[in-house]
Amino acid sequence: MSTWQKIKAYIEGYKDVILLIHEKPDGDCLGSALALGHHLISEGYQPFLYHPEQIPAIYDFLPGQEMIKYYQEKDLPEGIPIIAVDCADSGRILYNLSNGAPIINIDHHSSNNFFGDYNLIDAKAAATGEIIYELLSEAENKISVPTATCLYVAISADTGSFRYSNTTAKTFKIAGELLNLGARIDYIRENLFDRHPLSELITIKLALANMQFSLDGKLAWSILSYEELLANNLLDVDTESVISLLRSVEGVEAALVFKELEPSKIKISFRSKKYLDVNLLANEFGGGGHARAAGCSLEGNLKEISKMVLNRAESCLREYIAESGDFSGRRT
Amino acid sequence: MSTWQKIKAYIEGYKDVILLIHEKPDGDCLGSALALGHHLISEGYQPFLYHPEQIPAIYDFLPGQEMIKYYQEKDLPEGIPIIAVDCADSGRILYNLSNGAPIINIDHHSSNNFFGDYNLIDAKAAATGEIIYELLSEAENKISVPTATCLYVAISADTGSFRYSNTTAKTFKIAGELLNLGARIDYIRENLFDRHPLSELITIKLALANMQFSLDGKLAWSILSYEELLANNLLDVDTESVISLLRSVEGVEAALVFKELEPSKIKISFRSKKYLDVNLLANEFGGGGHARAAGCSLEGNLKEISKMVLNRAESCLREYIAESGDFSGRRT
Repeated sequence: MSTWQKIKAYIEGYKDVILLIHEKPDGDCLGSALALGHHLISEGYQPFLYHPEQIPAIYDFLPGQEMIKYYQEKDLPEGIPIIAVDCADSGRILYNLSNGAPIINIDHHSSNNFFGDYNLIDAKAAATGEIIYELLSEAENKISVPTATCLYVAISADTGSFRYSNTTAKTFKIAGELLNLGARIDYIRENLFDRHPLSELITIKLALANMQFSLDGKLAWSILSYEELLANNLLDVDTESVISLLRSVEGVEAALVFKELEPSKIKISFRSKKYLDVNLLANEFGGGGHARAAGCSLEGNLKEISKMVLNRAESCLREYIAESGDFSGRRT
Repeated sequence: MSTWQKIKAYIEGYKDVILLIHEKPDGDCLGSALALGHHLISEGYQPFLYHPEQIPAIYDFLPGQEMIKYYQEKDLPEGIPIIAVDCADSGRILYNLSNGAPIINIDHHSSNNFFGDYNLIDAKAAATGEIIYELLSEAENKISVPTATCLYVAISADTGSFRYSNTTAKTFKIAGELLNLGARIDYIRENLFDRHPLSELITIKLALANMQFSLDGKLAWSILSYEELLANNLLDVDTESVISLLRSVEGVEAALVFKELEPSKIKISFRSKKYLDVNLLANEFGGGGHARAAGCSLEGNLKEISKMVLNRAESCLREYIAESGDFSGRRT
């Protein structure tokens, strides 16, 4: 009995299927869920992707938008089987899970806590899209072009277009097979990588205009005041591309972005390249995250707060350099 | 007899080998040539990569830098066999080719004019790196980690990290095999993609500060004056990332960058997304290129010249829109 047949046994006798993704959805959970949806349709099911938050507009090109249901209740409809995709634990799902029907949990996070009645977890997969690909490869119906396109997006998104170290030979094998199945690589590139909202460019413009460096270019930062963000209609904008750009400057070890989202309410993002543990740094200010990406929120005067946090970041960098010697620094 | 053995027959009895790349070298020609060099060393040869121009600093991480010889004479040393890599024709090589020894020509450009004594041309390959991979796979010595890393860079560079439509299932198969051979994906990402010179960021900062739009956001441009470029020490800087960024804005069809490199000497770059033939546009001003990427150089007053070229670009866009209907435009 194939894994796909095992999963089918859970949804047998049902027509509708609820697909669930995690909060702040990304390309992997969306691509994986819609791929699964396309395939379920081909087998006679009626899948719906329930989600209460707005799906980021950058994913509006994924085939299968008509499956998305912006359902705002906390309780899901009773008696419809659930397939949760790319969700490490039920806490990342924005609904109550118990609705009297089976729960299937398909994910690649090593922290997955097996909340399903059936759990298909592979922590070695670069993306949940890889798991769905292997699952659907076993199915009777061939993987369709829209399914292949969604899976390709899922894998491409979670591997940074095959740049991150989670990319394996298996990832490449699957990507090649998806191409052979008709995944539309030009369409994906145009929409996933070559299409930036103007607001993103304006954010970069503002952030670079305010960019500063210290410690010989090892620390980079940018401060965006409430007035500036408000004047440019950027209060809800994502600064991910900005902080990536700051960190990518040669010689920079750590990058910080200060965003005053409301007067005196400041969100701070931290990124590091090789050695500074920004999780520890963010912890000191009540935040957290990972060693290379973290964040915190503080209240107070923007100038004073940024000065305080920057001083602490500089001290941490100085400590590290004193202990380990300066092996980074800008190319001359 | 394998292709590698055929090539070996041409260099048999020699110790030194000259590797040649094309003018303005890119990741594919450099990675491919150095990969071949690493392998030739493993077989007892002494390869040198001759080139008269400065190799772009972004490639200084490629293993095998010691093979590079900044040779300034027009005539190459006599009687040393030549392997030209990724060169479509001898005109793109900055040396005289006739030195009394065999010439081997390995390339993937469909326009290659078979200038070698032995020509290994595969226009279906996404990168010359793919051809070198297949060639060295036939060799007795296993592909080493530095060779695999160089080949991975070659392929990654010419496919835009597996984003462009030249990427095939074969490309992915080779990339997977290179990973298995030890290609250092983290090292490549850090150096090839996550390392921007500060001058590049400052160029982006300036260009975005001067960014303008017309025709409902379909035309984007930026004008960089001599004074500004000089003041920021950017006269020799590359604006590729700037124009890509401008073109990538949602709804933009064409992007132009005006760079006043000397007082009243203006270099203009044109890029388009889907329909505007910027080659035709650049032709009108004595330049040229491709339908989606072209350039020209003009002399005169920066304001007047930019106004003239922008007027013409707007007319072309308007003509197209009048004929075909407006199917692009910004997402609201």
